[in-house]
Amino acid sequence: MGMTMTQKILACHAGEDSVKAGQLIKAKLDLVLGNDITTPVAINEFNKIGVGRVFDRGKIAIVPDHFTPNKDIKSAQQCKCVRKFARNMKIENYFEIGQMGIEHALIPEKGLAVCGDAIIGADSHTCTYGALGAFATGVGSTDMAAGMAKGEAWFKVPGAIRFVLYGKLPEWVSGKDVILHIIGMIGVDGALYKSMEFTGRGVGELSMDDRFTISNMAIEAGAKNGIFPVDDRTIDYVGKHSKRKYSIYEADRDAEYEKSVDIDLSNIRPTVAFPHSPENTRTIDEVGNIKIDQVVIGSCTNGRISDLRSAASVLKGRKVNKNVRAIIFPATQRIYLQALREGIIETFIESGAVVSTPTCGPCLGGHMGILAEGERAVSTTNRNFVGRMGHVKSEVYLASPAVAAASAVTGRISSPEEVVK
Amino acid sequence: MGMTMTQKILACHAGEDSVKAGQLIKAKLDLVLGNDITTPVAINEFNKIGVGRVFDRGKIAIVPDHFTPNKDIKSAQQCKCVRKFARNMKIENYFEIGQMGIEHALIPEKGLAVCGDAIIGADSHTCTYGALGAFATGVGSTDMAAGMAKGEAWFKVPGAIRFVLYGKLPEWVSGKDVILHIIGMIGVDGALYKSMEFTGRGVGELSMDDRFTISNMAIEAGAKNGIFPVDDRTIDYVGKHSKRKYSIYEADRDAEYEKSVDIDLSNIRPTVAFPHSPENTRTIDEVGNIKIDQVVIGSCTNGRISDLRSAASVLKGRKVNKNVRAIIFPATQRIYLQALREGIIETFIESGAVVSTPTCGPCLGGHMGILAEGERAVSTTNRNFVGRMGHVKSEVYLASPAVAAASAVTGRISSPEEVVK
Repeated sequence: MGMTMTQKILACHAGEDSVKAGQLIKAKLDLVLGNDITTPVAINEFNKIGVGRVFDRGKIAIVPDHFTPNKDIKSAQQCKCVRKFARNMKIENYFEIGQMGIEHALIPEKGLAVCGDAIIGADSHTCTYGALGAFATGVGSTDMAAGMAKGEAWFKVPGAIRFVLYGKLPEWVSGKDVILHIIGMIGVDGALYKSMEFTGRGVGELSMDDRFTISNMAIEAGAKNGIFPVDDRTIDYVGKHSKRKYSIYEADRDAEYEKSVDIDLSNIRPTVAFPHSPENTRTIDEVGNIKIDQVVIGSCTNGRISDLRSAASVLKGRKVNKNVRAIIFPATQRIYLQALREGIIETFIESGAVVSTPTCGPCLGGHMGILAEGERAVSTTNRNFVGRMGHVKSEVYLASPAVAAASAVTGRISSPEEVVK
Repeated sequence: MGMTMTQKILACHAGEDSVKAGQLIKAKLDLVLGNDITTPVAINEFNKIGVGRVFDRGKIAIVPDHFTPNKDIKSAQQCKCVRKFARNMKIENYFEIGQMGIEHALIPEKGLAVCGDAIIGADSHTCTYGALGAFATGVGSTDMAAGMAKGEAWFKVPGAIRFVLYGKLPEWVSGKDVILHIIGMIGVDGALYKSMEFTGRGVGELSMDDRFTISNMAIEAGAKNGIFPVDDRTIDYVGKHSKRKYSIYEADRDAEYEKSVDIDLSNIRPTVAFPHSPENTRTIDEVGNIKIDQVVIGSCTNGRISDLRSAASVLKGRKVNKNVRAIIFPATQRIYLQALREGIIETFIESGAVVSTPTCGPCLGGHMGILAEGERAVSTTNRNFVGRMGHVKSEVYLASPAVAAASAVTGRISSPEEVVK
């Protein structure tokens, strides 16, 4: 029996000719990642290991992005701890605010993740880099600590579900709608500890930003990782962002999948996940009249340049509804600069939206847009659990940047088709 | 004995021909102001009064600027309370994020403060509008409540200190240096419950933004208000921003001042207030080698367009020091947009600074840049008391935007002359 793409990468990093689902392996790591919340815990554990130095100063990345710029004294102390560790260990890829962005947008942009990599990150959305044809998965701080010390991690080789994409996305439908559609179909435990392997001719129709969004939310279906095959777009992206050598892995023809699901991209509608679960999806046509108080556009899921372009194309020449606070977070400084030069930031400010410096912000109820009791937000983020963005009696509706921008204009969950005529 | 400019305004608003220092008067108000921290308390008190409606829906302004975009659930609840009150009372000047900015930059920009006004605000830096030749002072939430109900407030008529300005500011010296110089000279209680009345030919050399900064920090010398005479620049500013009728008051020639202080603007050097008091000033030449961790440029004191231009002229083509987090807050959405169109925001991002949406942010230890133990910030804000910007063992050095920007480049408190050659 052959191997899936994920299994191929893991076998190579474990120094094995072949691995199979369920097998325990120890794999060498190309990158170990942490943020301002998880790294302080990992540093504690790292110090207990007592090795005194990290395995490779170039293969660790620390990105203080969650509660930065420092929300309060506690977060300031955490960032100070992380900064001191990075300096002491001479970690090359420590990103201070001003040089940074949200980790999962920043790492590919900085060329620190390339095709064929094995990556762990102490953040659940580390699976984002699967878009590049890498194995990337979120781990706990203890695994991060061991990874920083040894450059290795233990894995149970995951089985896989194959998603065969075909067709082409209609106007106003994006990667976010694809992954919400899939999670709505298979549920939040639909891919539990499995690889979501995306294949088919439809992959070629998806932009890299679409793929990042889809891989990013693989964890919301419970997946270990979500991975795309490497094509010309991937090679082009990696070539533009990284000088690192990369490796291309392909699933064997006789790879074993626990299930195969066909997805016709041309049939997907703008999709919204209702409270309080990403699987609780409805198409925009089924939404009804849901008034909102806030719109959030950004995050590691949807804060990339194409997301901002999409939102701007809806907001251009229009005004944010007077009952709505619209808060927009470019995911990195570079994306912010690009958006600024394209006139997108100007469009946002003119529309009455506010633009924040890159931060995870309200996505995880951190800061910069927390909801009060009874308030509703349409958000391009990745989770809408109870209390995720604030009060336990607030509600988050997950959607694409286009739907979020349209909703900002009307003051209720709306299709971009309704607003842009 | 004649009246000071402040006394003239108060007399008129009290319906008196004449008032004198120490007299208790009841004055009619042109504007009653509150923010997201003080207004909820005022609403409670307002409800106890039981009038059921505000005295004038057009003469109240509510600006949620301190912990917005909502920092946490508590601030979200406070903003919700304020928003609901503003809607119920049909308050015309409620400014949601997206339409707003920091209150003391926003109110003049929106034309809500003009020459000759009597204004109270439940925020200590309400004295800012003295730059327009208005009487404006900070009050507690209870006074705000009474003001909203009745449109009146009780005052003890203040005595005055006259500051006779002459000469012209040298390059890189601004209103911030003037007021720090004055507070360094007279101390933080040097003008306790008095009016600081600025006069002299030097006034004409000061931009409106310089005057706003100077009036803004009158409270840091303990003053009741800080007021400028009305000249062509004032008239021009008011004409461009407001459609309201205004009145020009002038001090009588025989007005009584408790003291008169001559200030030669041409002799003022860039000035820094060391921890932990605004009176603890040194000129830039006396500063020594003070390494810093953070630079904050913005606030109601120094977040106006000329402040951003000044900072940008230092940062243009230069990089923020790798050991420094530089955080820049345009004071209003309009200032943000102006700075964006002038290429200033691009300069900031290119330099490695981060640009936030308007908020009071770290000035009061709110959010968006809180200091950890042992950290030092150069800040263009107005107070450097113990723990003002975070940990009780952090330090804040108050300075102008030019000095702050220069310090961001070098990583220690520096003169712009050192950086821009």
